Order: sequence, then structure tokens, then C-alpha cells
Amino acid sequence: MTTVQTPFERVALSLARQGMMTHLGVRLLSASEGQVALALTYSDKLTQQQGGFHGGAIGALADIAGGYAALTVAPEGMEVVTVEYKINFLNSLQGGEIRAMGKVLKAGRRVIVSTAEVVHIDENGKTTACAVMQQTLAPVPKTY
Amino acid sequence: MTTVQTPFERVALSLARQGMMTHLGVRLLSASEGQVALALTYSDKLTQQQGGFHGGAIGALADIAGGYAALTVAPEGMEVVTVEYKINFLNSLQGGEIRAMGKVLKAGRRVIVSTAEVVHIDENGKTTACAVMQQTLAPVPKTY
Amino acid sequence: MTTVQTPFERVALSLARQGMMTHLGVRLLSASEGQVALALTYSDKLTQQQGGFHGGAIGALADIAGGYAALTVAPEGMEVVTVEYKINFLNSLQGGEIRAMGKVLKAGRRVIVSTAEVVHIDENGKTTACAVMQQTLAPVPKTY
Amino acid sequence: MTTVQTPFERVALSLARQGMMTHLGVRLLSASEGQVALALTYSDKLTQQQGGFHGGAIGALADIAGGYAALTVAPEGMEVVTVEYKINFLNSLQGGEIRAMGKVLKAGRRVIVSTAEVVHIDENGKTTACAVMQQTLAPVPKTY
Repeated sequence: MTTVQTPFERVALSLARQGMMTHLGVRLLSASEGQVALALTYSDKLTQQQGGFHGGAIGALADIAGGYAALTVAPEGMEVVTVEYKINFLNSLQGGEIRAMGKVLKAGRRVIVSTAEVVHIDENGKTTACAVMQQTLAPVPKTY
Repeated sequence: MTTVQTPFERVALSLARQGMMTHLGVRLLSASEGQVALALTYSDKLTQQQGGFHGGAIGALADIAGGYAALTVAPEGMEVVTVEYKINFLNSLQGGEIRAMGKVLKAGRRVIVSTAEVVHIDENGKTTACAVMQQTLAPVPKTY
Repeated sequence: MTTVQTPFERVALSLARQGMMTHLGVRLLSASEGQVALALTYSDKLTQQQGGFHGGAIGALADIAGGYAALTVAPEGMEVVTVEYKINFLNSLQGGEIRAMGKVLKAGRRVIVSTAEVVHIDENGKTTACAVMQQTLAPVPKTY
Repeated sequence: MTTVQTPFERVALSLARQGMMTHLGVRLLSASEGQVALALTYSDKLTQQQGGFHGGAIGALADIAGGYAALTVAPEGMEVVTVEYKINFLNSLQGGEIRAMGKVLKAGRRVIVSTAEVVHIDENGKTTACAVMQQTLAPVPKTY
């Protein structure tokens, strides 16, 4: 009997292995073919000098949202590594949480191109654009 | 009596306010006009799914190295915000520490352009290129 | 009597001053607040070594599409300069034409963030994704 | 009898096939393993709306400088395609010429990472930084 992993299971298994993301408290919201949503609740582990979400936290969340979107379209037995990304920061807010939606733009054989949008959601549910990212990934054999 | 902050003091004071960087354990190695070096020792707070330094940690360190290099050339009473950056990942290694050297390329009135190089240094002192970043920052009034 | 320029007029007047774009044959398709579409017909002035549209032509078209989208939201008497952009190439095709759609993502006081999508349209009207770009611009006083 | 191409010959042969670059007047200055220098003399084919070198010309020159640097390290029978690049514009000047120096940072099996610096040189030989670029390329089989 063989079992086929769903995109959600595939991403969840990899995320659980990421010490940094577990430590910061990243949550997987949804994962389907070519699309992954993640969330990260505000805490003092995530702040910059003015008390807002640190660009490092925003960048890391965008990176793995785009990366996991790419993972959902990578061939079985492969995972992906980030070749590079570029991120524009639009607003930095505090409290609430940030959410990143990663999407695959092109799934090539050699490289996968993804984008991610990060929004901030405050305690009242108000959504503000936070960052946009454009990213290149490469499929590599999974070694674990 | 007035006291003028050295670049090192200026960067150290801002870094101490960054919850995320304090939490991850970032250390300020040196800071002079237009140039800042930072280090981050390997720990399980910083890993990706294969046990290497997480791209999120590498990206965050590069971001603040370039950003703090920019801070050292910003007018007094101003600080800087990251407008955007682009990072290429060259190698991901584990153990030891990563170091980022940020440098100002152009200090304009409206925007400052910085670069950062991140290297990995293992327990035996062997240095490996880890990532390169190109970044745009904007000077903004300091509000704290 | 004062006349207010439409976004289309504002962009068309600037485009006519661009020696390079006039020379390559760029056409303005549409311009409204925050959004500009441009086209460029295939010719041997635009090719790379394999006969496809040159990345330089695709990049230039994306750059001005995003830049002119930014111009439509810049205050009167100002124009914009490109601070930086990042472009991913998805496919390179020949014949037909390429079209770029530039859109403003955030119109800040200091910087404007735009994106552009470039598509190829062949002789039969078939559309293929060609490139995506993310860009930062700065408003500057118009000097002519 | 087999003849081995020098890096200069390899780049020169590809450059001669690029309709756009021939048309704009790009000249190959030097090419060695991992490093290529190109030049482009000012003309009204290359201007933006204020009479300076167009970002499209600067971007195209940077792109092929980094790309040809990558070509010099690609295996025989392969050429390279640009996956993506990111460019920061530092100054826009008119007259004289611009020169781009492309360098390979990492020659991987899947992707090659290059950088390029573009400078402006005026009629009196004065050199001004013009742009910096960071780029990802992929080796692909040569089909002509």
C-alpha cells in the first residue's frame, strides 16, 4: 500500500524540521498545488528597534511561503532551495500577526519562480500590505 | 557638554533595541563610517529543514549589516528603514557561525544603497561564501 | 485658463523625449492612474543571439512600464527616476510583439513601488508570460 | 585538428549574433575566465527623457556583461540564459561612454551567480559609478 502525501502534509513535514521557524512560531494555514499560506503572531522575538515586525521576520516568512509554494509543485523525492529573492517592504506594523501567501509563477525544470505577498492583520482584523517578494528556487534531491 | 556618538555606539544602541536580533544572538563585531560587521553563532534557533543555517537567518543578518552600514552615514537624528533588498544564496552550512559585512555604496539624500556579504566560518576557521545582498534604504527621522 | 494633463498625455510627452524608446519603437497603449501599458513590435533591433527578444529589450520595456505607472501618481511638477528593479525572465520568444503592463503597488512620499508583467503575443494572438518585475522609484523635481 | 576558443572569441562570436547589441553599438573590451568588460558610446539611440543614458541601456549592458562573464565559465557546448537580475541605478550622466565589468561570483552546476558594475566615463576620462547589478544565470545547451 502506498500513500500519497497531500501538499499540506508535504509542507507541514518540512516546516516541522525547520528549527528557526518552529522557534519563531510560524503556522501553516493552507497549502494546495502552487500556493501556500503561513502566519506568524507578533511577539518580542520578532521586533525591530521601533517595536514593529522586524524585516528579518517578514523576509523569512515571505521566503518560506514562496519556497513552500514551490515545494508543492516539485517532483516527488525532490525538495527546493532558494536561489535568491528580492523583497520590497511597504509598511511595518506591530501587534496582531503577519500572513504570507506564496504562489508559483512558473515551474520550470531547472528553476521555479515564486512570489509572496505579506500582509499585517491587527487585533480588529484590519489588513495592511506589508511586503512583496519575487523569488527563484531550484529543485534538488531530498537527502533526508 | 555634548557627546558625539561613535558609529559603533550608534549601531550598538539600535541593535540592543531589536528584540529579534537580541533573541537570535546577533553580535556587533565592528562599525566604522559606511561599514559594519556582525556575527551570529549557530544554534537550533537558526536551522532549516536540513540542519544548515536558515535562509531567514542569513537574510536577516545581511539586511541589518547593510542597514547599519547605512545608519553610520545617516545625518544625526535620523535612522534608516530598509526599502528593499535582494539576496543570492551561495552555500548553506551548519555549525560555526555566519558573519555579515555591510558596506555603503552610495549615500544619497533620498536613498542609501548598501551591499552585504555573508560568509560561514566553521570550527576550524575555514571561511565559505554564504550569500550576497544588494539593498536600498531610506533615511527617516528617529522617533524614539 | 489652465489645462490639466491626462495620465495618457503626461506619459506620452515623456515617452516622446526618450531617444532610446522612440528609436526602438515603443508604443503607448494606455495610461490611467497607477497603470500603464506599452508595446514593442519584434524587429532585428531587438534580438539576442538565438533570435528571440533580447532581455535588454524586455527589461527596458518593463522598467518604463513600471516607471510610467509611477509617473501617473507623482505630484504635478515632479517626475520619477528608477532607484532599482529586479526582473525574472520566464520565456523568450520571437516574432509578434511584447507588451508590458506596469502597476503602482504603493505610492509613498519618498519612494513609489511598482510591478510590471511582460507578455509575448504572437502573430495568432497567442499570449505567453515573458517576464515579471518589481521596482522602486523616487519622485524628483521635473527640470525641463 | 581541434581548436579551442579563447574566452574572448567565445564572447565575441555570441555578441556578434545579438541584433540589439550590435545595433546599439556595444563593444567587447576584454574577456577572461569569469570576467568580461563591455563599452557603449553615448548616442541619441540611448537617451532617456532628460538626455542621460537610459536605464534600459545601462540595464542591458550590465545584463550581458554579467551574462558573458558566466559564459566564459560554462561547459563547452553550453551557453547561458539570464534567469533574473536586480540593478540599482546610482547616477545617470550624458556624453562619453558607459562601461560594464561583469564578474562571476559562483559557478554552480545548476545556476551561475554574477555581478556587474557599470561606470560612466566622460570626455575627460572622469569616471562615475553608474549602476550595480546582481544576477542569476542558468547553463543551457547551445542550439546553433
